[in-house]
Amino acid sequence: MTEINRRWVLVRRPEGRLKDSDFKRDDQPLPELGPNDVRVRVTHLSFDPTQRIWIQEDSYMPAVPIGAVVRATGIGQVVASNNPNYKPGQLVQGAMGWQDYVQNEGFTEFGPLFPTPQGLTPEQLMGAYGANSITAWFGVHDILFPKEGETALVTGAAGSVGSAAAQILKAAGCKVIGVAGGPVKKQWCVDVAGMDACIDYKNEDVAARIKNLAPDGLDMIFENVGGEILDAGLANLAIGARISLCGAISGYDSDTPVSGLKNYMNLVIQRGTMKGFVMLDYIPRMQEGGMAVAALAAQGKLKVEIDMQEGFENIPATLRRLFEGKNIGKQLLKLTDLPLPVA
Amino acid sequence: MTEINRRWVLVRRPEGRLKDSDFKRDDQPLPELGPNDVRVRVTHLSFDPTQRIWIQEDSYMPAVPIGAVVRATGIGQVVASNNPNYKPGQLVQGAMGWQDYVQNEGFTEFGPLFPTPQGLTPEQLMGAYGANSITAWFGVHDILFPKEGETALVTGAAGSVGSAAAQILKAAGCKVIGVAGGPVKKQWCVDVAGMDACIDYKNEDVAARIKNLAPDGLDMIFENVGGEILDAGLANLAIGARISLCGAISGYDSDTPVSGLKNYMNLVIQRGTMKGFVMLDYIPRMQEGGMAVAALAAQGKLKVEIDMQEGFENIPATLRRLFEGKNIGKQLLKLTDLPLPVA
Repeated sequence: MTEINRRWVLVRRPEGRLKDSDFKRDDQPLPELGPNDVRVRVTHLSFDPTQRIWIQEDSYMPAVPIGAVVRATGIGQVVASNNPNYKPGQLVQGAMGWQDYVQNEGFTEFGPLFPTPQGLTPEQLMGAYGANSITAWFGVHDILFPKEGETALVTGAAGSVGSAAAQILKAAGCKVIGVAGGPVKKQWCVDVAGMDACIDYKNEDVAARIKNLAPDGLDMIFENVGGEILDAGLANLAIGARISLCGAISGYDSDTPVSGLKNYMNLVIQRGTMKGFVMLDYIPRMQEGGMAVAALAAQGKLKVEIDMQEGFENIPATLRRLFEGKNIGKQLLKLTDLPLPVA
Repeated sequence: MTEINRRWVLVRRPEGRLKDSDFKRDDQPLPELGPNDVRVRVTHLSFDPTQRIWIQEDSYMPAVPIGAVVRATGIGQVVASNNPNYKPGQLVQGAMGWQDYVQNEGFTEFGPLFPTPQGLTPEQLMGAYGANSITAWFGVHDILFPKEGETALVTGAAGSVGSAAAQILKAAGCKVIGVAGGPVKKQWCVDVAGMDACIDYKNEDVAARIKNLAPDGLDMIFENVGGEILDAGLANLAIGARISLCGAISGYDSDTPVSGLKNYMNLVIQRGTMKGFVMLDYIPRMQEGGMAVAALAAQGKLKVEIDMQEGFENIPATLRRLFEGKNIGKQLLKLTDLPLPVA
């Protein structure tokens, strides 16, 4: 019996807000398992703001081609294997894409399909122990160089990277002010993630609140949002401030022109440094980052909330949740329960 | 006979473009020379974009108080002295202000009035050998870290800091693309300052020209202008680009809202670093920077054009020349010829 591989492919480069019609279903029969091939059933997909860039244009990675399966990381289980490196039943992670199956010699565009560490759930693997936390780790320790007693602003503070960055900064002895949208996220940032304070940008004057909460200025900003919120941070820099530019989600998925940065001259006045980075460059250091976040998570110092959606048909809508501000923490989607039967 | 000290004082914080009415004359009799006092006749004043910030607001220095003499660096000659450290006849430099005389114990808000190196003219002291060149030196060698064969963009390339930065980058073996306003400045940048190319932002599409001149992207930007010109540079970064943010003159003296930076997300995509700096922080390293630029200038590798205005009454209009794009190179104003008779 030929199995069907359900697939969501990219129809066109999106303009403004993501639409249903940017994607279409293109289900295909699953080919026979070739020599050395491994067949992975995708069980969980990860949704990240940077996916919006991948389908939009060439960036730090080539754009997803029109007509190709939409690129996404995720977790799957090996269900059949002619490859001695992969055993049926084991969990792997890597670039899975918006589809039911990955079938090849065990390599994706990101590199090999990696066996996952034993004993961790998909929620842990893509949450507290996930690439989001490792991104936050390097963005904090390789870009911001926090010193005990310093004050940091973290934007997108209820998101998976922001909430991890905030807790990594707390663990380094810093005072952390989060920025998040709405009272529920604000409360989560303080009560669960342990931030010293959180500003609700939907209901508060961000610049005024920063000034009030950090009267001596911000020594560090971990930036995920960009636009007016980054401008509010730039208006409140301490001398020698460092800004780790991880993303600028406010500009990724918008029908209106993005408001530009106005306060960047404060980088001169306060001798600030704003440095962008992408996780991809840290792949050679994944062990270092992975061990660091695992140690924090195992001590309960790194809590990442999971927003788990379900259903293959809900994949495009789940990506949109990120830009609609609907998710707290890590946005995942479950395609099927584990464990699966193996061939 | 009591001498009069002519003075221009600040009337109010300027709004939008500088106006004559932002300043007024407030001439005062010169006090008797006290014990340990030195009397310096100001002979040459320096005009720099950062002066616009000093009268506008507290920044890396306190704002010039309303009613106070406008702050400006310059050169003068000691004409009388009760201070053993200063001899009548010698030249000194420091914060002179918009006035005929500085009279005190030899200290200004920037520190002591410094004796000038022997054998250099005021044009050299405030041009090729001046603070503009030393600013450019540190902005290049302490922020950009140029490597031979790399490509740099220098904005405000016909200005005193920009033209020095471009030549310092050339001396480091880099390809240098300038950006300047109008055909006269453009030609000067290439023919006199030796840049590989120059873009006339008044008559050319800056982003398209950069793309054409630097098809592999910009490794470095030395930024003096900000706004749309910096955005054009940000649109064309190479991976690992460094941006030395020295100033953003386009935003200092404008009646219209400044256009914000739109392309800063390229700092993430290209893993770029944008770092602001102010000369003041390098005062402990002035000898190092001064010797470096003197060596370059003495070899003819650092040519800074001088725009010399004259006349005490023309001081406010001379500051405006910077924002009207009128000057090529260093903007100076001569108050009186040298040498002067001494008491």
